[in-house]
Amino acid sequence: MRLAFEALRDAPQPTVRAEIRCGAYAEHTAGLADGFLQANLVIVEDDYALDFMRFCQRNPKPCPVVGVSDTGNPMMTTLGRDIDIRTDVPSYNIYRDGVLTENCSDITALWQDNMVAFALGCSFTFEHAIMRAGFPLWHIDNDRTVPMFKTTIPTVPAGPFGGPMVVSMRAIAKDRLDEVKAISAQFPLAHGAPVHWGDPAAIGIDDIAAPDWGDATPVGTDEVAVFWACGVTPQAAIMRAGLPICITHKPGQMLITDISDTAETPIHAAE
Amino acid sequence: MRLAFEALRDAPQPTVRAEIRCGAYAEHTAGLADGFLQANLVIVEDDYALDFMRFCQRNPKPCPVVGVSDTGNPMMTTLGRDIDIRTDVPSYNIYRDGVLTENCSDITALWQDNMVAFALGCSFTFEHAIMRAGFPLWHIDNDRTVPMFKTTIPTVPAGPFGGPMVVSMRAIAKDRLDEVKAISAQFPLAHGAPVHWGDPAAIGIDDIAAPDWGDATPVGTDEVAVFWACGVTPQAAIMRAGLPICITHKPGQMLITDISDTAETPIHAAE
Repeated sequence: MRLAFEALRDAPQPTVRAEIRCGAYAEHTAGLADGFLQANLVIVEDDYALDFMRFCQRNPKPCPVVGVSDTGNPMMTTLGRDIDIRTDVPSYNIYRDGVLTENCSDITALWQDNMVAFALGCSFTFEHAIMRAGFPLWHIDNDRTVPMFKTTIPTVPAGPFGGPMVVSMRAIAKDRLDEVKAISAQFPLAHGAPVHWGDPAAIGIDDIAAPDWGDATPVGTDEVAVFWACGVTPQAAIMRAGLPICITHKPGQMLITDISDTAETPIHAAE
Repeated sequence: MRLAFEALRDAPQPTVRAEIRCGAYAEHTAGLADGFLQANLVIVEDDYALDFMRFCQRNPKPCPVVGVSDTGNPMMTTLGRDIDIRTDVPSYNIYRDGVLTENCSDITALWQDNMVAFALGCSFTFEHAIMRAGFPLWHIDNDRTVPMFKTTIPTVPAGPFGGPMVVSMRAIAKDRLDEVKAISAQFPLAHGAPVHWGDPAAIGIDDIAAPDWGDATPVGTDEVAVFWACGVTPQAAIMRAGLPICITHKPGQMLITDISDTAETPIHAAE
């Protein structure tokens, strides 16, 4: 049986993961498992794992590492109890030679003994925090996807990984800009403070109404466009690197962890 | 000519590094290059680099990664301009098969094409912050080394790396405990908030007057012993792992970077 979002809205996070694991839920995870860290996923073969981890260390705002599997072990032991990365994400993107070739909701048949899974922090954590502080977020209020743009901001390369930073944009009241900067800066594992605000052209965005991913979002006359480093950056870097095989989550359909989104470190206590 | 500490106390950080590079200064770096991030050093062969980086990710309080070299490249490009890890640390410890076999002030002859250098944040950053807030630190006021202890707190293992966490202790006024916890929590790349306070026996320390490293430090009746995760933890893990060769800094004699110690991320802008 397929479950709708509403059926899981108030479910505890182990229940949500169980429904995802058995294939009953394969939709977006925004708004589910409130209070728990959600994560982007990147799986690479071990030959590329050290370079990818270096790429993340050098680009901590778009690529904050919150968990790394042992090589060949699909259990993400530091992110929670019984998290199997082969089944516990709603939908996966499969990239071959840098090209997105297929989607699926279970990668058990694709998992290899030489694979390493990386979980990277996502913007949901700081979005919750700024909403709690009374900031409206247009894409959430209107059930759309946040607009994302390629920029001319370079990432710091590592091995085959590099290329431009991708950013997400949220329209913020001009007189509360400093406040939103300070709040988001408190979440270094969720992209931290914005990387730019104001003129989109200054970071290579020609048309704010034509995002590269997600939905166009209005910016009111009393608002300013604020840009945060985005977790799509590593997917762009992976496509550019052209690895033989790479697996990610499908954007918006994240890994739900057992880590509190206010935890000082994203490490699940051993039991 | 050998320089004394006083000759470099007010020198800018490129000057301090230049004097270290040419061998003119090979003493402790506490109090030098004020305002710039200093770092612990661990160099391993590439076969162990991914496991070591996973160990650091899983133990972010004792092992906060602030920089990683490319394999075989001794230049720490993300930590500053012209930082050569073979010469720019005052003194190095050389471990062979897990045993400390020698010290030297230049590892050019030992550097290998398969080596990877890791820089890990150190406590100087948060010590400066708490001193600015008016906390006296006994070991600094008395020109001693902070006391460090092996504990029964386990690290989260990765590959051959694991074992007990090492902590450092500072005596803090009981009525200012919350304040010092909040200040240090703001520095996740410098060990963050303390891991324990109060009864030393609760974390396996039998005698607070007999540290495993550093100097015994008094705890007054109006004070509480506060324990932070310590950058000696990875050196203990390396000895335990018994790698064929591993190179670290000599404790107290750190790598001085060009990164401001208030920077949001420890990444030096390309020039």
